[in-house]
Amino acid sequence: MFEKLKDLKVYEAGKPIELVVREFGIKPNEIIKLASNENPYGPSPKVIEAVKNIAHLMHRYPDDSFFELKEGLAKKFSLEDKNFIIGAGSDQVLEFAIHGVAPKKVLMAGITFAMYEIYSKQVGAEILKTPSSMHNLDEFLEIYKKEKPEIIFLCVPNNPLGECLDADEVYDFIEKIDNDTLVIVDGAYQEFAAYKDAKKALDVKRLISYPNVLYTGTFSKAYGLGGMRVGYGIANEEIIRNLHKLRPPFNITTLSLKAALEALKDEEWVRMGIENNFKEMQKYIDFAREKGFNYIDSFTNFIVLYIPQSTEIADKLLKRGIIVRNMASYGFDALRITIGKPEENDKVINTLREIS
Amino acid sequence: MFEKLKDLKVYEAGKPIELVVREFGIKPNEIIKLASNENPYGPSPKVIEAVKNIAHLMHRYPDDSFFELKEGLAKKFSLEDKNFIIGAGSDQVLEFAIHGVAPKKVLMAGITFAMYEIYSKQVGAEILKTPSSMHNLDEFLEIYKKEKPEIIFLCVPNNPLGECLDADEVYDFIEKIDNDTLVIVDGAYQEFAAYKDAKKALDVKRLISYPNVLYTGTFSKAYGLGGMRVGYGIANEEIIRNLHKLRPPFNITTLSLKAALEALKDEEWVRMGIENNFKEMQKYIDFAREKGFNYIDSFTNFIVLYIPQSTEIADKLLKRGIIVRNMASYGFDALRITIGKPEENDKVINTLREIS
Repeated sequence: MFEKLKDLKVYEAGKPIELVVREFGIKPNEIIKLASNENPYGPSPKVIEAVKNIAHLMHRYPDDSFFELKEGLAKKFSLEDKNFIIGAGSDQVLEFAIHGVAPKKVLMAGITFAMYEIYSKQVGAEILKTPSSMHNLDEFLEIYKKEKPEIIFLCVPNNPLGECLDADEVYDFIEKIDNDTLVIVDGAYQEFAAYKDAKKALDVKRLISYPNVLYTGTFSKAYGLGGMRVGYGIANEEIIRNLHKLRPPFNITTLSLKAALEALKDEEWVRMGIENNFKEMQKYIDFAREKGFNYIDSFTNFIVLYIPQSTEIADKLLKRGIIVRNMASYGFDALRITIGKPEENDKVINTLREIS
Repeated sequence: MFEKLKDLKVYEAGKPIELVVREFGIKPNEIIKLASNENPYGPSPKVIEAVKNIAHLMHRYPDDSFFELKEGLAKKFSLEDKNFIIGAGSDQVLEFAIHGVAPKKVLMAGITFAMYEIYSKQVGAEILKTPSSMHNLDEFLEIYKKEKPEIIFLCVPNNPLGECLDADEVYDFIEKIDNDTLVIVDGAYQEFAAYKDAKKALDVKRLISYPNVLYTGTFSKAYGLGGMRVGYGIANEEIIRNLHKLRPPFNITTLSLKAALEALKDEEWVRMGIENNFKEMQKYIDFAREKGFNYIDSFTNFIVLYIPQSTEIADKLLKRGIIVRNMASYGFDALRITIGKPEENDKVINTLREIS
């Protein structure tokens, strides 16, 4: 009955706090979870207040046109409503695009966001990856010319590694791609990159002036709403109209819609979180230098540290209630650590100093 | 680029309150929305409280195993966790099943839940419908034998008409279907039907003892959580394992998970809503009899009244701030009205008395 699915595997998410509580008996409030790139400061207090105020309306479906949210986003990006589609996380917009194009071949960096591959395999696509783990556009171009994939994914900056292409490199690359190949530019962490280095800041209006570009963004990271599942796609009207054909009605919750709307109104809170992120990231860089560990220069809210015997170290951290992402499954002897609050980072670094 | 989608249309949801506010300038709190089968009593106060208490955790992804929720559902249905998959509404479970099977042909009642057809068209399936609008299992069987569809949908009770097959009719029908055809039994409104008439109550444990049956249920209706998008699929372990291959991670929100968990604990509230539903439905039946209008005997939280010139009547209601579903698009001169709170139903009936 499900022959089509026989080569697919079930996705395994990072260990949730609940599991560590169950396995090691550590109290929930003593656990430090820095494994899923959640924003440690959470959403703006104004967002929390607004959501509480409409919690009694959970029986009401949201306005399925998402009119107000699209208006808010249109203002943020100096575009029009018709350039937007709302998804349950930007993941879902990726799903619409991949299922809609149903590509035979897709191209992506050697190590990049896992969902590109998962959704592409669902439609039976062949997965092409560059030899380099990080984005190397010469390699992208070479494979593109030879294989003509129908979708190319650029993760700018890249999760789970943290490196980031310059905006000009992205535009130049797109110029070289034919219009019948969709280039998806995933900007889930763009707010962080744009803050750290103006050269990384993508001009989305310029990006979507190309007929074959889809940009995706999210409220999960800089806006602190990972658990609410709200993302968006931005493209020209024709691409957006096609993606809407695959969007199920009411694909974000009533409370998620309110949260996203309010989050857009408090850019001050977002800026505070990003500033603190890079201030705190410096602690990990200083620690790595002190120990002689390599690390990847990061334009996101996480950092990859090459710590020898990472699997053993990740296990030791877990038993002490600290959850990080071990990169061994990618063939890297390294840990990916989400930048937490000051006290969390201090504890993680002190623990690492003891055990590594 | 999107050739595959060229025959698909964009889904149009019912008019949201926001639109009526914009179009007719009626104040939001004066609008009566009885168009989307939302539970007028909303969720249990305990659910609202629990959600407010964790509103500051919106940055945290939910436990993606949905361990606790599956445990709660397993208890409710006397089954095991491995028999469950959680969806963003039961719609999403339908999507997993349809995309996973990728059927060439699907079979459904003449008029039934719109998403069966929408998801099936996304995978290019031919849509077969019985000549009868309501579920007629003789017709189902005849078409099944001739066409051998890979999926059959039974909506028990049926949305948007309200009629309901007996449980024994469902079991007898399934016995006659080969194991390589998936029978999806959609129980979105089962709690209402089971309350009204014990003969309609499906034994889910028995249903899923068949190797080819998927049952779907939801928190959107009886549990009053339509806006939170939580549903579930129940089947044998093998079907569930396959459906999980198509489930994206974190497919319900952190607040939705909490709401569903708490809702399961307050069955008293659910029962109150269902009792009131049928008490209030009687008012519409009395009105129909008084006016000599036909209606469909309903096992749900809505009722279809055959009111002449339904399009004109629906428009008149809308201008008075009352939103119902006009059935003209189904070729019926009728309105589908969600059963509201007592004061809402009284106002609707009084208005209908004036204008019809």
